[in-house]
Amino acid sequence: MYVLEQSPPELTHLPGIAHKTWASGADGLKQLSVWRQSMAPGAATPPHVHDCDEVVFCLAGQGELRVQGETLRFDARQMLVLPGGRPHQIFNTGSVPLEMLAVFGQTPTPTRGPDGCELPLPWQS
Amino acid sequence: MYVLEQSPPELTHLPGIAHKTWASGADGLKQLSVWRQSMAPGAATPPHVHDCDEVVFCLAGQGELRVQGETLRFDARQMLVLPGGRPHQIFNTGSVPLEMLAVFGQTPTPTRGPDGCELPLPWQS
Repeated sequence: MYVLEQSPPELTHLPGIAHKTWASGADGLKQLSVWRQSMAPGAATPPHVHDCDEVVFCLAGQGELRVQGETLRFDARQMLVLPGGRPHQIFNTGSVPLEMLAVFGQTPTPTRGPDGCELPLPWQS
Repeated sequence: MYVLEQSPPELTHLPGIAHKTWASGADGLKQLSVWRQSMAPGAATPPHVHDCDEVVFCLAGQGELRVQGETLRFDARQMLVLPGGRPHQIFNTGSVPLEMLAVFGQTPTPTRGPDGCELPLPWQS
């Protein structure tokens, strides 16, 4: 399957976060995972870190990235570049859904919480 | 620099192909490269292969992917999932620019022609 659909994200049990894994090891990839997410106004990711590179394309809305003591604003003209191993958190600070496309340099995507332990995710990564 | 601009692609000496490297090793990434490309109607990539995973998001327009003897049509509702090592070629078969965002599981992105030799690119990958 070389051509896949860009399917809309679906609700998860994480408050305000809808998700769809667009591509991953299940599609024959060995190095990449692709996540499409939509975050409701006021919602945020938990604080977390990936042991691989991540790039997040903001497709619509606006938000804040907290990383290494910095708080950085972003909107749909921008992307977040997160080399592996940087603990971070993303907030929707706007009044409309924050639409994001995230790509990772490893599949499955290794995700840990601030305590260093694996963060269980409600989706296949 | 954690927040970068989604800059428009710029003309290259490859006929009909505009390109901008949005993120790569130059931005601190060790596993990912991100390319933004625009292809004019009637234009095509040269036949080529990457020794790493690639996912291409079609943002606008329509095209054809030729890979391993197959010709597959795609448009802006779809993405191309290309595990490493599959020789391929992408054509703009529509009447408007084919807008694409491509991510790779290695930086710099290893790119070879059908003869197996490195394909020189007019951009930093």
